[in-house]
Amino acid sequence: MALIVQKFGGSSVRDRERLFNVARIVAGTHADGNDVVVVVSAQGDTTDELIAKADEITHDASKREMDMLMSAGEQISVALLSMALQELGCSAISLTGWQAGFLTDRAYTKARIKNLDTERIESELSRNRVVVVAGFQGINRYDDITTLGRGGSDTSAVAIAAALHADLCQIYTDVDGVYTADPRMVPSARKLPAITFDEMLELASLGAQVLNNRSVELAKKYSVNLEVRSSLTNVPGTIVKEVTDVEGMLIKGVTKDDKVAVLSIMEVPDQPGVSFKVFSLMAQNKINIGIILQSVGRDGSKDLLFTVPLEDAALAERILRENQARFGGKGIAVETDVAKVSIVGAGMQSHPGVASRMFETLYENNINIQMIATSEIKISVIIKKADADRAVAAVHAAFFS
Amino acid sequence: MALIVQKFGGSSVRDRERLFNVARIVAGTHADGNDVVVVVSAQGDTTDELIAKADEITHDASKREMDMLMSAGEQISVALLSMALQELGCSAISLTGWQAGFLTDRAYTKARIKNLDTERIESELSRNRVVVVAGFQGINRYDDITTLGRGGSDTSAVAIAAALHADLCQIYTDVDGVYTADPRMVPSARKLPAITFDEMLELASLGAQVLNNRSVELAKKYSVNLEVRSSLTNVPGTIVKEVTDVEGMLIKGVTKDDKVAVLSIMEVPDQPGVSFKVFSLMAQNKINIGIILQSVGRDGSKDLLFTVPLEDAALAERILRENQARFGGKGIAVETDVAKVSIVGAGMQSHPGVASRMFETLYENNINIQMIATSEIKISVIIKKADADRAVAAVHAAFFS
Repeated sequence: MALIVQKFGGSSVRDRERLFNVARIVAGTHADGNDVVVVVSAQGDTTDELIAKADEITHDASKREMDMLMSAGEQISVALLSMALQELGCSAISLTGWQAGFLTDRAYTKARIKNLDTERIESELSRNRVVVVAGFQGINRYDDITTLGRGGSDTSAVAIAAALHADLCQIYTDVDGVYTADPRMVPSARKLPAITFDEMLELASLGAQVLNNRSVELAKKYSVNLEVRSSLTNVPGTIVKEVTDVEGMLIKGVTKDDKVAVLSIMEVPDQPGVSFKVFSLMAQNKINIGIILQSVGRDGSKDLLFTVPLEDAALAERILRENQARFGGKGIAVETDVAKVSIVGAGMQSHPGVASRMFETLYENNINIQMIATSEIKISVIIKKADADRAVAAVHAAFFS
Repeated sequence: MALIVQKFGGSSVRDRERLFNVARIVAGTHADGNDVVVVVSAQGDTTDELIAKADEITHDASKREMDMLMSAGEQISVALLSMALQELGCSAISLTGWQAGFLTDRAYTKARIKNLDTERIESELSRNRVVVVAGFQGINRYDDITTLGRGGSDTSAVAIAAALHADLCQIYTDVDGVYTADPRMVPSARKLPAITFDEMLELASLGAQVLNNRSVELAKKYSVNLEVRSSLTNVPGTIVKEVTDVEGMLIKGVTKDDKVAVLSIMEVPDQPGVSFKVFSLMAQNKINIGIILQSVGRDGSKDLLFTVPLEDAALAERILRENQARFGGKGIAVETDVAKVSIVGAGMQSHPGVASRMFETLYENNINIQMIATSEIKISVIIKKADADRAVAAVHAAFFS
């Protein structure tokens, strides 16, 4: 008998039909002799309706009251899923975030879990009940309701799996696993049977919207085996764990991120402290920096280029112009018609030819590389946005044909 | 500076416009220098939507899960009302039932308050915030969410007023007070400036759907001054308190209840124990008995008549027939074309002519009385349903012209 945590997102429980579909999956897992904890998000339309209600009242709602409002959404879905399980003859009980023991910090709308007291969950499991837990929510030390922010239900599920030392944490979503590329863009993309936490983290941060990064980090920290699978097809998904043994795969995936911009500061003085001044300005304004490229100094000056999320490009440019006196330079430019194409795989650590194969492929396809960044398990290039889809297809073919 | 508890029902907060209407009333009371605790029900349509969602899943939902589901409704309305108050510049904070300290027994869907820990409410009041409390809900000693059943938000409001020794508990509703008769039926009905708890209890149990009985009982027990008033008109309502000083009013109201039936058992043996057997059967089946009439014994037998709520008439008849061997009698009949017309007023205790004036009025209008019941502050008669409206109008005219 195993202990399995199963998480279902808002679209998986959006109506009666989907709720019973989820209830059948859960009841089947329980009937197979497993202990089951289910984590559920708010029904898709509930979340939208609650946001609409708040928007009618004010466009500047207090975050505490937004959390009070939004957390009602999961309370509704856990009650309904418990009813559906009971209707199928499966003993079940619903718990809110605070009933399930989630203590968080005070950061309303993006709280972090500080502690998880599993006494209540374990007590219900010992009575052979499926425990249906409201994802995304907890309480802080003042007994106020908090929510965990984007992807919060994934984090709730992994936290429960970690605290209970669950054998597996299944994240049910509307895709049936992690693919070597976006199947809508690359028809030959393959589903991966397994992937490491680090590879998953790189893929997630590169735009593969399968799992929330915080939940993967948490799973890595506590060695929680994850499975990404679909609630609509009964096929094995992708296992995410510490070490994988997929034979012969140099890389695990090719991704594209076209929500990126390149900022350039031309001819800054080649003196210590310039980078520090620029990037501390970005940090103060909570702008995440991606790739950084510094040209070789010449004539006592250099060029500084870096990428930021596309949505922050205008803000970043304005900050640079307002503060240019502090770091110098002859010109500031922002380029938004760019994309980042990356390959990810732990295998490249022991195979030095991976990078050159990627660059060769791009060269053969006449695609110019503007910037390059590498880590132990990832290589990213900045290219023209217009070339991005062609680049992904060519690189995918080079590694997976 | 006074401490005022204000309660608003579901229709008073049903949409944006009504929410802001309520927020203006509350913010005005706060701006006048009062401490304010607001108790809110779920928005009218929210409750209906939640029930519809449950009905889609099962027609036999567990009561615990229904309470989990339904309590989300008030959580939504308190968050929205707090947002509306903040939008008006009024400092406010919302609290769920458990955050507000409501500890109840375990009777899901009809729980009773066991204790109210006001620490959090008082702490928020001391910070000059309006405290917006979710009515109708609490938690039991197992930390499970419970609801208080019909009229529960009134009870929540009175409980808070009692615990905090509030100066006044205002129940805002869609009528602007308590009337001497139903104004839709008797155009000359007058609004009462004041009424005693006992009179209000008799009026409520007689079908005047203004205040829930449990809340009036609680207010009487803890001497909480109530005011029933409208959230849509800014006029004084009706004060409900221990003693009133309304001059010269023998009675306070005339009511009609046509949701009543008369059960008759003919020619039961005139022996001890017959009434006990019949009424203990009714009690076992949770059927409330209204008026009881026992005819004078003759030939060793008597007739036993009593009223029950119309909805229980068929069940009561079946129980009597199935158990007739235990108490004897020659026939069982049920009459459903009847109505109960009552007059209520503490003044009748010191004015013996009240009953005879009522009976005289009915006689003059050629209305036959089938049964009579009296208490210290109430006289009820059972008459034909077809005569009821005419009886109410005539009796009202006799006392209020």
